[in-house]
Amino acid sequence: MSYFQQKMPEGKVFKDPVHGLVHVKDQIIWDLIATKEFQRLRRIRQLGTTSLTFHGAEHSRFNHSLGVYEIVRQILDVTFAEDTFDETERATALCAALLHDLGHGPFSHAFEKVFHTDHEAFTQNIITGKSEVRDVLMRAGKDFPFLVASVINKTHSNQTLVKLISSQLDADRMDYLLRDAYYTGVSYGKFDLERILRVLRPSPDSNGVIIKESGMHAVEDYLMSRYQMYQQVYFHPVSRSGEVLLWKILDRAKSLYQEGYEFAVTPNEVLPFFCENVTLEEYLALDDSILMFYFSIWQKEEDEILRDLCNRFLTRRLLHYVDYEPSQDQAFYNQMKGLLEKADVDPSYYLVIDYSSDLPYDLYKPGASTGKSPIQLLMRNGELHELSTESPVVESIGGKIRTDIKLYFPLDFIENGRIPIDVAKEMASLIHEKEMQ
Amino acid sequence: MSYFQQKMPEGKVFKDPVHGLVHVKDQIIWDLIATKEFQRLRRIRQLGTTSLTFHGAEHSRFNHSLGVYEIVRQILDVTFAEDTFDETERATALCAALLHDLGHGPFSHAFEKVFHTDHEAFTQNIITGKSEVRDVLMRAGKDFPFLVASVINKTHSNQTLVKLISSQLDADRMDYLLRDAYYTGVSYGKFDLERILRVLRPSPDSNGVIIKESGMHAVEDYLMSRYQMYQQVYFHPVSRSGEVLLWKILDRAKSLYQEGYEFAVTPNEVLPFFCENVTLEEYLALDDSILMFYFSIWQKEEDEILRDLCNRFLTRRLLHYVDYEPSQDQAFYNQMKGLLEKADVDPSYYLVIDYSSDLPYDLYKPGASTGKSPIQLLMRNGELHELSTESPVVESIGGKIRTDIKLYFPLDFIENGRIPIDVAKEMASLIHEKEMQ
Amino acid sequence: MSYFQQKMPEGKVFKDPVHGLVHVKDQIIWDLIATKEFQRLRRIRQLGTTSLTFHGAEHSRFNHSLGVYEIVRQILDVTFAEDTFDETERATALCAALLHDLGHGPFSHAFEKVFHTDHEAFTQNIITGKSEVRDVLMRAGKDFPFLVASVINKTHSNQTLVKLISSQLDADRMDYLLRDAYYTGVSYGKFDLERILRVLRPSPDSNGVIIKESGMHAVEDYLMSRYQMYQQVYFHPVSRSGEVLLWKILDRAKSLYQEGYEFAVTPNEVLPFFCENVTLEEYLALDDSILMFYFSIWQKEEDEILRDLCNRFLTRRLLHYVDYEPSQDQAFYNQMKGLLEKADVDPSYYLVIDYSSDLPYDLYKPGASTGKSPIQLLMRNGELHELSTESPVVESIGGKIRTDIKLYFPLDFIENGRIPIDVAKEMASLIHEKEMQ
Amino acid sequence: MSYFQQKMPEGKVFKDPVHGLVHVKDQIIWDLIATKEFQRLRRIRQLGTTSLTFHGAEHSRFNHSLGVYEIVRQILDVTFAEDTFDETERATALCAALLHDLGHGPFSHAFEKVFHTDHEAFTQNIITGKSEVRDVLMRAGKDFPFLVASVINKTHSNQTLVKLISSQLDADRMDYLLRDAYYTGVSYGKFDLERILRVLRPSPDSNGVIIKESGMHAVEDYLMSRYQMYQQVYFHPVSRSGEVLLWKILDRAKSLYQEGYEFAVTPNEVLPFFCENVTLEEYLALDDSILMFYFSIWQKEEDEILRDLCNRFLTRRLLHYVDYEPSQDQAFYNQMKGLLEKADVDPSYYLVIDYSSDLPYDLYKPGASTGKSPIQLLMRNGELHELSTESPVVESIGGKIRTDIKLYFPLDFIENGRIPIDVAKEMASLIHEKEMQ
Repeated sequence: MSYFQQKMPEGKVFKDPVHGLVHVKDQIIWDLIATKEFQRLRRIRQLGTTSLTFHGAEHSRFNHSLGVYEIVRQILDVTFAEDTFDETERATALCAALLHDLGHGPFSHAFEKVFHTDHEAFTQNIITGKSEVRDVLMRAGKDFPFLVASVINKTHSNQTLVKLISSQLDADRMDYLLRDAYYTGVSYGKFDLERILRVLRPSPDSNGVIIKESGMHAVEDYLMSRYQMYQQVYFHPVSRSGEVLLWKILDRAKSLYQEGYEFAVTPNEVLPFFCENVTLEEYLALDDSILMFYFSIWQKEEDEILRDLCNRFLTRRLLHYVDYEPSQDQAFYNQMKGLLEKADVDPSYYLVIDYSSDLPYDLYKPGASTGKSPIQLLMRNGELHELSTESPVVESIGGKIRTDIKLYFPLDFIENGRIPIDVAKEMASLIHEKEMQ
Repeated sequence: MSYFQQKMPEGKVFKDPVHGLVHVKDQIIWDLIATKEFQRLRRIRQLGTTSLTFHGAEHSRFNHSLGVYEIVRQILDVTFAEDTFDETERATALCAALLHDLGHGPFSHAFEKVFHTDHEAFTQNIITGKSEVRDVLMRAGKDFPFLVASVINKTHSNQTLVKLISSQLDADRMDYLLRDAYYTGVSYGKFDLERILRVLRPSPDSNGVIIKESGMHAVEDYLMSRYQMYQQVYFHPVSRSGEVLLWKILDRAKSLYQEGYEFAVTPNEVLPFFCENVTLEEYLALDDSILMFYFSIWQKEEDEILRDLCNRFLTRRLLHYVDYEPSQDQAFYNQMKGLLEKADVDPSYYLVIDYSSDLPYDLYKPGASTGKSPIQLLMRNGELHELSTESPVVESIGGKIRTDIKLYFPLDFIENGRIPIDVAKEMASLIHEKEMQ
Repeated sequence: MSYFQQKMPEGKVFKDPVHGLVHVKDQIIWDLIATKEFQRLRRIRQLGTTSLTFHGAEHSRFNHSLGVYEIVRQILDVTFAEDTFDETERATALCAALLHDLGHGPFSHAFEKVFHTDHEAFTQNIITGKSEVRDVLMRAGKDFPFLVASVINKTHSNQTLVKLISSQLDADRMDYLLRDAYYTGVSYGKFDLERILRVLRPSPDSNGVIIKESGMHAVEDYLMSRYQMYQQVYFHPVSRSGEVLLWKILDRAKSLYQEGYEFAVTPNEVLPFFCENVTLEEYLALDDSILMFYFSIWQKEEDEILRDLCNRFLTRRLLHYVDYEPSQDQAFYNQMKGLLEKADVDPSYYLVIDYSSDLPYDLYKPGASTGKSPIQLLMRNGELHELSTESPVVESIGGKIRTDIKLYFPLDFIENGRIPIDVAKEMASLIHEKEMQ
Repeated sequence: MSYFQQKMPEGKVFKDPVHGLVHVKDQIIWDLIATKEFQRLRRIRQLGTTSLTFHGAEHSRFNHSLGVYEIVRQILDVTFAEDTFDETERATALCAALLHDLGHGPFSHAFEKVFHTDHEAFTQNIITGKSEVRDVLMRAGKDFPFLVASVINKTHSNQTLVKLISSQLDADRMDYLLRDAYYTGVSYGKFDLERILRVLRPSPDSNGVIIKESGMHAVEDYLMSRYQMYQQVYFHPVSRSGEVLLWKILDRAKSLYQEGYEFAVTPNEVLPFFCENVTLEEYLALDDSILMFYFSIWQKEEDEILRDLCNRFLTRRLLHYVDYEPSQDQAFYNQMKGLLEKADVDPSYYLVIDYSSDLPYDLYKPGASTGKSPIQLLMRNGELHELSTESPVVESIGGKIRTDIKLYFPLDFIENGRIPIDVAKEMASLIHEKEMQ
């Protein structure tokens, strides 16, 4: 009996607040969950700094990875006809779903900006390189790790498998919207997963999934949920203020290192990243608690900037923000910069522009070389129509990149005397004027 | 205007998945939340090792503390008549509710067993000693920190205030049952909070809270939820296996330190605990991520036991367990001990008895010096009756301590060759026999 | 291909607020739902007069019948091993689940008390007598209607089939607890259906269902939900006040008819019941709206008692109640009776004792000829233990019949002058004294 | 003490599945609920024929009316500043909220089409004419009934009061979307009521309510819910098929009456409507059960059409439908008509065009005489901006009337022999061709 066929007699379940239960019947899935690389995801939060705004959002990527697996399992075992995929394809999809986020490190967004790592590349490395995960996958065949990896990097020959996990209507998004809504407690992320799972079909050309026309409104609702979650949760300016602090902490530490600064305690686990020369083992050794440990002890570092930024992050003394429109607000920026410099506050750490942008739905434009494939509706007469041609709601949010730019700075410096009184007054009135626009 | 009277014009809210919104109108509450000691609770998980069993339960004590505050706020501002408490009493209760868990450290249960710290004493120290929290409280009066502390240590003259926060029907339990049920995803912890909040009344003699007779069934349901959560979640033997590992890790590290062992990286933040001589500042410097950092790097320590235990904890290679009845299973224990020693496995770390016990409801027994006050029902004719005299369900779970004892050991050592084959065989058959009883 | 094997290509679903979706794949189930006898259940409310107390509880038996079917379908198709039942047994169970309440008439409880009909007998008659339901069932074989009926009347040779639908842990109860909790909005009725469905097993001797030991707490919770729903919802004294009115309306109408009273509009549909001589066709012609029609027009009947009772029922001018203990309150009853008679108010309609009683769980007592089979736990060592021997909570509610007796009378008659002032005063003071006991 | 000031000591609550509890503290509200006209709403379903599609949707207008009251109560007592309204205005708004649907009759939509009654006019009549409701309101002042009525008919001088109950963002819609979603079980109708209630403000010119900018996304979500509920639930073509049957039943009965047809049982309660000459008392005497009674007995009427239509309605043998585009499908219509006539089936009852149309959001167009006032956002700088100018999502659904037209006919006549075989064949092929377009 092949490893794919090994089922656990009674099956196992995980109690999951989003899906009720996550069902595991395949031995290979059970073994993958037990690997140290997968267990490491318990120590990587799903939403980084979002819990600074929504205190409930403290869940980990372990949570989410099980959820994506469960959705794909339901699609393969319940929604799709039994003969849609063969045994190897089914196992490939389940493993890829479970492992798709395996390469995420702590606070990925800020971290990658500073250290130029790439969690997608590391996901590939972990799956195909020296790891317990690879060892488990190999039991199913020498090439199986590469097969799984190819679904995640989108090169697998069956694009339906690929798009179950990575497309504009994939198990990844479906899980994180529901899950992040659950933990934050907002009502926006809810949509009718059960109905979508009923109307999903493999596309006839094995090039993705399509939706029966009768499910159009459920998909509209899913896209609106996505739009609202980005606007209300993921891009919340307060969470981004935490993100800016993180970015600047890492930036400062790296600069100090490059300048030859002596840390009170050598940050052994972070050094390879300062040098941008990281082995797989070093990468896997990092998690949220390692970084948080250093942020904690850096609160006592000699360097004032590093000390202050870390203390801000840990005690939630966040930077203040104003809307920022590059084409109009250059003068404001320059004035702020001048005043901060006058007060001996380094603007490269304390005057930060942060961009967020999202494309809620990428509709198909003939001739455009868009990488994202549009969502297709299977009409009653058998034709395929692109979603936004049928739905004015989707059309309204489709194809338009939504950008939000904020300028962050330490308003508390004005109040607590860190900035001399005359400069502080000038700055306060400048900010007031900006906010009254 | 006194500090108590300072209200924030529009009020502030926190989005909370359990209560919908947590409302803050008092400036003093807002200021307390912003202190570094309260923000530290974001880095202390509410349920320690429970997430090893219920992966959703990754929430922090910050979450729960806001929730307890919100319940007390609703009781004071909505349930109780306006003249029940004066302004000082109201503020005292709200602050005590918010701060009641302030002294919790990382993984309190195992930690305190090894290092003999006491989170309740530290809660008192933080509130009345050198801290930002104390500074905020002092703005309301020199004695105010002591007033708040006296509610938490149960010595405040108005016992109704005390029992809102600490009794068999208090805001603390009401919040954690609902919250832990929400994050684990189990259905057991649900009860009708809204109804309980409607039928709660201050006792006529200011000695606690009582319940209108019409709310008896809601309180029955609350006590059943508590009972079920203890049986199903808090005492889950798999979580306790994680707890046992934690305990033994800390134990081993302390022993090594006392023996003069040289750690590869000096665990500065933990040393004061090894010596059992800890300042408030040192205590506050500790959180989950500091301990997790050391557990991570101890996976490479020279000491084999510390290395193995830490690796087990981080990769979830938990100890196996069997039911253990001290009066009957002594022989089994001795045999296991002998075999482990034969295989050169130290039983003081690898053969561990763990007791859990709970008293779901302590009913009043005349003459008994029980510390817990029973729940009183206000009958329609004005009399007070103790709950278990009216409810056979409560009577059935009342007064009976429920104890569960397990014996933990590394079953994997039998399978992976760590224990020589002949000893392993003997041990395997011994365990099998025990499990078949 | 047999009728049992006819599946509908894409399947059909009903959106259900309790189970999410009700799935229908078998043609026979689809055809049964379309019969006029099953559609009639849309016009019979599940909870009779409960909506007078819990206004949300306006759902019909159509709702509930689909729900019971869905639970049985999940047990057969998901929980149990595939070879547990053959094709005929499976179809028999599904049909029996769907049809088990088919014979219910309007306001069954009060109706049957007055007219001595028996909804269980009518369920049998509809399934095996002249009906569209029978015609559908016959397509599956001449004896099939009788097979289905035998599951419902508990004589089917496979008692596991019987007990899925009718036992102390059956799909009927599981659905109505969840459903009635949902529509009333109370939190008591919730329990973990998903978990129970996972741990249910056919008993080895085909004599019922058993529960794996690991599911004990879920079953405890289910029994507690049942207990609470009976105490809080089903036996609510206000709903029972509506029930008493119903009973007395029907009683009065029947008496009038027997005395030769001429109704302004002949109640053709009710006459056969007055005579207690009812054909199946006549029985099926009755539903809630027919009775409500007559109650409406009887508000203008000449008979004062009928007029008043109907008006009370439709405008919710309910009777008042006090606790009633037959052994102690006989004197009170007699005094009330005397005073009502003095005021020319007929006590047989206006002084009514109502008993409610429930046995939350019937545990097994050796030697007792109890009809209800106890719930068995399948212990890890393979033994079967009766639930209450393992669970003190279940033991506390088991075997004890809980009875509640109320005395109902028209308090408003005292206030609105219907009762002369001197009698009214006496009565008011009598009642006050009773309530102050 | 004025009647407005009479509060009930402990308050009363209704358990409500949507809002948790409905709180009543004002004596006047309690007294209004007890009137026979308000109790009558228990016998009028909120969603008419929707339960033919979504079986859970069997709730009454009584449910919804309490819900609208509760939302307005929360807005007045919690959201708005205390001095927004005086005591009279507050009571006026609460009463108007409770009573706004008082004039609804059974199956209003179809009923009013046939009998030309107007439920809004009857609401006014009940409140100001001879009724228990009027008597209760009069206790608060002679003019008070008219004041309440003027809020409902939108002529009250304070338009903020009016628009709380009737506007594009009113308590009526907020309640019915949430409530109908709850009972149907669909997820579409959910939105964040709590947040909307936090950001709602009276407009500075007492001309409606406005929304703080920070609540824009919650209002977007509310409008999307509304859009989805109309598309998915309210306009569901199967429910409309039931609606068409209702319409044609009433139409047929009226025609028969006008032709002098003799009904087996004289439909006394409906006669005034046949004559279109109805007193308030006669209007109030009608409810769902009265109509259902006649539909039941008309299943045995001599007239074949009435008999068939009633039987269809009660046994859910609905008419079939196809999309219908008047500009293109006239020929199809004519052919169908011809064939039906050939088969002696009266097309005026059996070939029915049904229009549904909705304007999800009416944005403001300068110069347009639109009756609906647009939703205004209160920007941070104090300006008011119309919602659709800020939200592309709202812009996409705004101002566009969404129309759906279906043609209904009895497909079963083709199959069951009612239509001769040769005509049936022709018709079947005609329909098939239409559906394949």
